This record gives sequence, C-alpha cells and structure tokens, in this order.
Amino acid sequence: MTRVAVLGALGKVGREVCRAVEESDDLELVARVDAGDSLDALVESGAQAVVDFTHPDVVMDNLRFCVEHGIHAVVGTTGFDDPRLDTLRGWLADAPGVGVLIAPNFSIGAVLMMRFAAQAAPFYESVEIVELHHPDKADAPSGTARRTAQLVAAARAEAGSGPVPDATSTGLEGARGAEVDGVHVHAVRSRGLVAHQEVLLGGLGETLTIRHDSMDRASFTPGVLTGLRAIADHPGLTVGLEEFLGLD
Amino acid sequence: MTRVAVLGALGKVGREVCRAVEESDDLELVARVDAGDSLDALVESGAQAVVDFTHPDVVMDNLRFCVEHGIHAVVGTTGFDDPRLDTLRGWLADAPGVGVLIAPNFSIGAVLMMRFAAQAAPFYESVEIVELHHPDKADAPSGTARRTAQLVAAARAEAGSGPVPDATSTGLEGARGAEVDGVHVHAVRSRGLVAHQEVLLGGLGETLTIRHDSMDRASFTPGVLTGLRAIADHPGLTVGLEEFLGLD
Amino acid sequence: MTRVAVLGALGKVGREVCRAVEESDDLELVARVDAGDSLDALVESGAQAVVDFTHPDVVMDNLRFCVEHGIHAVVGTTGFDDPRLDTLRGWLADAPGVGVLIAPNFSIGAVLMMRFAAQAAPFYESVEIVELHHPDKADAPSGTARRTAQLVAAARAEAGSGPVPDATSTGLEGARGAEVDGVHVHAVRSRGLVAHQEVLLGGLGETLTIRHDSMDRASFTPGVLTGLRAIADHPGLTVGLEEFLGLD
Amino acid sequence: MTRVAVLGALGKVGREVCRAVEESDDLELVARVDAGDSLDALVESGAQAVVDFTHPDVVMDNLRFCVEHGIHAVVGTTGFDDPRLDTLRGWLADAPGVGVLIAPNFSIGAVLMMRFAAQAAPFYESVEIVELHHPDKADAPSGTARRTAQLVAAARAEAGSGPVPDATSTGLEGARGAEVDGVHVHAVRSRGLVAHQEVLLGGLGETLTIRHDSMDRASFTPGVLTGLRAIADHPGLTVGLEEFLGLD
Repeated sequence: MTRVAVLGALGKVGREVCRAVEESDDLELVARVDAGDSLDALVESGAQAVVDFTHPDVVMDNLRFCVEHGIHAVVGTTGFDDPRLDTLRGWLADAPGVGVLIAPNFSIGAVLMMRFAAQAAPFYESVEIVELHHPDKADAPSGTARRTAQLVAAARAEAGSGPVPDATSTGLEGARGAEVDGVHVHAVRSRGLVAHQEVLLGGLGETLTIRHDSMDRASFTPGVLTGLRAIADHPGLTVGLEEFLGLD
Repeated sequence: MTRVAVLGALGKVGREVCRAVEESDDLELVARVDAGDSLDALVESGAQAVVDFTHPDVVMDNLRFCVEHGIHAVVGTTGFDDPRLDTLRGWLADAPGVGVLIAPNFSIGAVLMMRFAAQAAPFYESVEIVELHHPDKADAPSGTARRTAQLVAAARAEAGSGPVPDATSTGLEGARGAEVDGVHVHAVRSRGLVAHQEVLLGGLGETLTIRHDSMDRASFTPGVLTGLRAIADHPGLTVGLEEFLGLD
Repeated sequence: MTRVAVLGALGKVGREVCRAVEESDDLELVARVDAGDSLDALVESGAQAVVDFTHPDVVMDNLRFCVEHGIHAVVGTTGFDDPRLDTLRGWLADAPGVGVLIAPNFSIGAVLMMRFAAQAAPFYESVEIVELHHPDKADAPSGTARRTAQLVAAARAEAGSGPVPDATSTGLEGARGAEVDGVHVHAVRSRGLVAHQEVLLGGLGETLTIRHDSMDRASFTPGVLTGLRAIADHPGLTVGLEEFLGLD
Repeated sequence: MTRVAVLGALGKVGREVCRAVEESDDLELVARVDAGDSLDALVESGAQAVVDFTHPDVVMDNLRFCVEHGIHAVVGTTGFDDPRLDTLRGWLADAPGVGVLIAPNFSIGAVLMMRFAAQAAPFYESVEIVELHHPDKADAPSGTARRTAQLVAAARAEAGSGPVPDATSTGLEGARGAEVDGVHVHAVRSRGLVAHQEVLLGGLGETLTIRHDSMDRASFTPGVLTGLRAIADHPGLTVGLEEFLGLD
C-alpha cells in the first residue's frame, strides 16, 4: 500500500482523485490538503506520494516542500515553463530517489492518441486535427489539439516529410482552421459534447483516423493512478505520462 | 421508354450520365451533344428530355432551344442567379407542359442530408458543419456546406432559435472555422478523401450527426435518373432535386 | 403555467423529470407521487397533466385514474401491447378532450434518427444498424435498434425495395449480426459508452449515416417537456413522440 | 535503382503494382511475368527483387526459383501455413543475403491500425471490432478483422487483462457479433462501402477509436514499395510488413 496525499483535495478534480485513490486496493489516502492547510500534514500523515491539482501560484512551493521531505509527486497543475522545470531539476538533483511527474494530460486515451498520431504521421501525405468540445470552453483550439499538432509536425519534420497538400485558392476566412506548425486544426463547439478529438491521416486511397472521446471527468483518474503506482521507480523529473505506460 | 439526349456528353460528368442512361431499362440514349455540335440533333433524334452538364456560357442558349422545342431539361450546370431563373420562368410561361429542373446537387444523399439537417436544427441548441474533401479542391468550404449552413440557419430563424452558444474568448485565428449565416463551417482537406460532410447537432446531453460520404463520381447519377423519370410530371421550373423525391 | 404531477417521482428518471419541470418557465411541479402514495394527490394538487415513469404493473391503474379525472398523461413506462392500447382508447372515448401520449422513447434525437432513417431507406440499396451501449446493458440489440429496423423495413416494403444485397457465403457465426425484418443489426458493448446508434444507408458510390449519441440520462427530458406542452392539443391516444414534433 | 520483376503481372493487383513501380523514381520494372511465362525471364531481366501476387498453387515454386537465384521476394499471395514457412526458412538458410517478405496485408494503414490496437488494448477494459465492406464480399468477418482480434487478444492475455465486460443476458441471435479469441467482431455489409475497419477501446468514461478506411485498391501499393525498398536489408524470412516500418 502506497500512502497518498492529495493537494487541491477540495477542487472538482481533487475530489475525483481522492475517490479513485480510496477505491483502489493498493493505494491509501492519508491526507486531503487544500488552500489554507499547512503542508506539514503531508509529513504527519506519512504520505509517500502526493497528487497536486492546485494552482500555478502555489505548485512550486508545494513541490519544493515535497522534494525536501522525500515525497514523490504526480502533478496535473498547469503553468510549467522551462525555467520552472529547470528549478525543479535543480531541487531533484539534491534529492536522489525522489520522483516528480509533470503531466499536461492524464487521460491515457489522449496520450495514446498523440503518440499513435505522431508515429503514423510520417507514413501519410496529409494530417489534420478536429477537436470537439462543449460550448462553454474558452480556448480554441484545445491545448491537447495544439500539443498533438506540434508532435505530429515534429515527427514529420524528422522524417523529412514535406508540407501537407492543400490547393485551396478561394474561400471563406477561417474555413481551413488554425495552423499549428503547418498542421490544420479545427475546433468544433456544441452542446451535448464533452471532450473529443480526431486525428485524420490520409494517403493514396486510404485514411487512418485516431479518435479519443472523453465522456466523463473521471476518465483522467486511471492515468493519475498509473502515475502514483510507477513514480517510485522513476526518480528525477519526468514530463508527460507517456514514459510511464511502458509502450516500447 | 423516355428518349434522352445528353448535352456536354464528352465531359467527365456527361460520360457518366450517358453510361447510366444506357444501363437503365426505362430510358433510351438518343443523342450525345457536345461543344461545336448543332442543337438540331436534339430534334432530329426525337429527344423528349435532355440532361445538361455544360457551361454557364452556353446553358441558357441550350435551355431556350429545348423549351421552344418542347423538350424537358434536367440541368446540373452551375451559374443560375435570380435574373437567369426569371428569364427561364418567362420562357416556360409560353410553353405549358415543359419542365426544367435546375439542381445544384444531384446526389440524393447530399439532398437528404441538407433536408434532415434543416428539419432537425430547430430542436437543437447547437449546429456545426464539417466538410472533408481531397486536397486538390480549390474552394473552402464546399458549395454544399455553404448551402447546408444557409438552410439550417433559415430553419432556425423561422423557428425563433437564438444564436448557437460559443464561449470562445481566446484562441488561434481560424480555429472556429468560417461562419455562414451564424453557422460555423470547417473544411478538412486530406489525401485519400473524396467528398464527405458531417452536420453535428447538439442539445442537452445528446448529439445527432448526419453524415454523407461520396466515394465515387458515379454517386450523382441516381439523382439525374430520378430527375429524368419525374420531369414530365413537373411542368414549369423546379429548383432543387428535393421536390422530386416525394418526401412529404 | 401548466400544473404537472410526476408519477414515479423518486426513481432515477422521475427525479430528472421533476428537476426539468421545476427549471422550466412554463410548467409548475405540483405533486411528486411514488409507490405507496395515493393518487388522490393528483386531484388535490390540481394537476392538469402527469408524467408517468412507473412500472407496467401499475401504469394502467394510474392512467384510468387520470382519464377519469380529466388529467392528461405523458407516459414513458413500458409494456404497452395492443390489448392495453385498446383498453386505453376505450377509456379515452368516454373522456373527450383528455390526451394520453405513450412514447417508447422520449429522446428527440432518437425519434429524429428513426424518422430520417425510414424516410431515406427507400433511396438506398443497403441499410444496416449498429447500436453501441455500456456493457451493463442486459438486452442486445436495444429496443431502439429493433424499432428502427422495423420502421426501416416497413418503409422499404412500402416502396417496393428488394432485400439488401449480401454475398456472405462463409464466416463465423454471428458476424453479420442479428436480423430484424431483414435488416442486420449489430450490438457493440463497451465500457465508456453510454447509448449510441448509427444507421448506415448505402447506394452506388455513397453512404448516408445517421448517428445519435446520448451521453447523459438528462437527454430525454426535452422530449418529455415537449410532450407536456403539446398534450392538451392532442386529445385521445397518441403513440410515439414523433407526431408532437410537427415535422410535416 | 532496384530492378523489379512482377509475378502475376496481369492480375488486377499485379497491374497496380506494375504501375506503381513504373511511377517510382528509385525502382525499375524489368519484367512482367504471368501464368504460362517461364521464370527464366527473372534471371534474363536481371531482376534483383520480385513482387509475387499469384496463387497458392504456384507461389512456392516461384519462391524456390527466386531464392536459388539470389532474388529477393515481396509476397502478397495467400496460403502460407507453418509447414510452408518452415520450408521457406530451410531454403533461405542455404542462401544467406536473400530476403523474403510474406505479408498478409500490404496496407500501411491496416498494419498501423492493428499495431496501435494491440498496444492500446491492455489499457482498456473493453475492446470490440466493427469491419465494414461492400456487399459482394464472401467472408465475414474479414481476414484483417480476425487478425486484429487475435493480436488484441494476445496483447491482453500477456498483460493479464481479464475478459471484456458483457452483461448481455437476453437478445437476438447474432446481435453481439462473432467472437474471435474472446473479442467481439461485427461485419457490416453495404453498397457504397469499400473496405473499412474500426477498433473501439473503452475504459472508465472514455473511448479510443482507431479506424482505417480504404477507398481505393491502390492503397496497398505504398506498402509493397516500402517492402521492395527495404527487402535487401532484411535477409531471411520476415512475416508481416510491420517490421519494415521502423516503428520502435
């Protein structure tokens, strides 16, 4: 049994994480910490690993505390730029054995979709992304769609693929979507949708489509649990859940 | 047996029409006419109806000849604006019993998709269109997608539907597609595709999707034959294949 | 304001109905009735219409009470065979002005899907149904899929369509699905799914696909409210929500 | 320039292969061989590699000739069981440097779909396969669908996954499809379709769908060319195109 504490335990996401940890057989929830609570609770509860879904303003303080006290961390909080990652690496250099996983996306399906899309991209002349979300979403395209486009574009560049074919010469502004590193990305918004994405790869006479449908907020929890179970075996800093999936 | 002549018989589309007429049991191909041929061949062959897939520059001359000689016409040539339609109506007023069908789209599937989308639209809070074509297509979005958006918007306006919800406040230019009468339209281009369109309608907790996939140029010929078989029973001017489908 | 009572108010579905009625501006929830409660509450509360999501064992008693007391009824309870419908018609003959709507499916999307599929079916050589649900569902195929197949088969029969083409001569048992009135129906079961159905219609070089995705139990409530708002204008017995949608 | 001969050059598939080889910049078509032609043409033309799309009755003779004469072979002909593969390995043991690729499927998209499905399968509770083909196909399910199911089942077994959940207790015969190694497989047949397959993987609140659409016979040729370009670097026997794609 790994003893787990949750930071941001009262948020929507944090509550789902707490529930999932409690329901699992090999993890024990020993502390729920939220804004205003002292981090000492982590030490007092004997937590071996924390899950952090808090806020960019506080996550670095949380992580310094964890690393200093030898507690592994699985982090879904956003806002990690290169300086922050460098700072984290510095702290971890002084704490051999401690692991920190920073993942922009804990949905295993989204991670697999991105990986498969990037692997397949060099074999196809065309690749295009359609993401579909509920209409209350503020950003378009989604972060996952942007990230997918970047990974696909990088894979194509490495393989020496040329630009995708597109003979569009006349039309309406916006019809061909946004471009991210040369990959066209379309954002559909509709009531009734939750979070969905489709990567379409096309070659001579055939297409390969990889689609991820997330119908429920809970769909990210298996990824968090996968992170918790593997974090002790991955000392140092890991960015992205993919390496924990053992795909190669 | 209805005797049929094809105008534009040597073009890609015309050749498919000729083949389809020849293969049908109740239609007889009596003349193939193309650029440079005299229209007198229509009279000499005893054609009762013509199919016209020619060019905006010559189609009006073709139709005047047909109407004057009492020959029905099924027309897929583009470029009909209101003045042209008015002119046609004038000619037909002097030729009772002659029928002319002008259809922007002879694909029965496309026609059904547009009709169903417009019928369903008032029941849904959201509606959005994704069209997908091969990358050699010059215009984006497709004419069918624009027309679908117009029909959907008109149906919503008549039903008193409000604007579709969309909280997008930040993003990349073009991500939300083009807007046609308030309906977002996205154009995907990929090798391997032919001609496809999806209309997504969304309401509380559910979506209805109507998708048309056209894999082969020949898919428009059943619509042309439907037009030929029914044209004698529809004197005067008809715009759009829909009325010939007997849906109501 | 129409005064509404809900029978089966404590069940999962009944609770959703109560919530939807309370949230609407033109309906007032005046009574919640469940097993063990007296039906007199309907009269005492001045209910003008009831919604019944109860049980085949009690629904006929509920409806006799409503009809006798001049209360309209919108009914989602199952188990109505021809003798039951005849009995209902008899009661309603003595109560002019009272309306009863029996609907096997209150999802507007499902109703539209079935209608569109039946309308399109005569134009296509092939038609096939794939329904997809969560793996805890006991029956396969779903009632909606069976009903869709029956409607499609009836439309084809009326139009004189022949059997769907199928050259399968070798294979594994069950691969071609179940047959309902000559229409092949496939039932997919997977964790992560809720309730989905796709009707695929195919002709020369093209397919038309009509798909309904229900992601949330609440998706049936707009149909119930539509029924409540229109029931006073539909005296007598109506089977199926379709007639209330004003599609023709 | 690699010099290529095509065996079965006059068949439908062989003609496409000849065309693709001729159109490529780095391959030279030096011989077209079909039934009745002498294999000596292979030697006389200086062929370095052959493509064999012939018949199970003659393919072994073809391959013995090639191996004995130091000619690589890329083989799409069917009918290779274990005894045949063992025989081939025996011949190749005496011909170091000669490579033979036997591939049941040369569609890169189909190969990627199978690989991704097998990689993803252990992360999901459910997996199910729907293949869709034109109605003139004799077998159901398709060979690709069977093979996908076997690969998915093997990946799940190796990962210790349990059986897929399925509470179906009542229904129509065949509704749940065919079972291949515990994986449910559904075969849809419709006019207008060519060759399509969808693998649906489902877990808590999410699904991952991998879909391959083959719209044109020519879609297998890129895989054959990939085989021809890499065969000299893969001496001995290789079964399946996957290893030639350099995915790991």
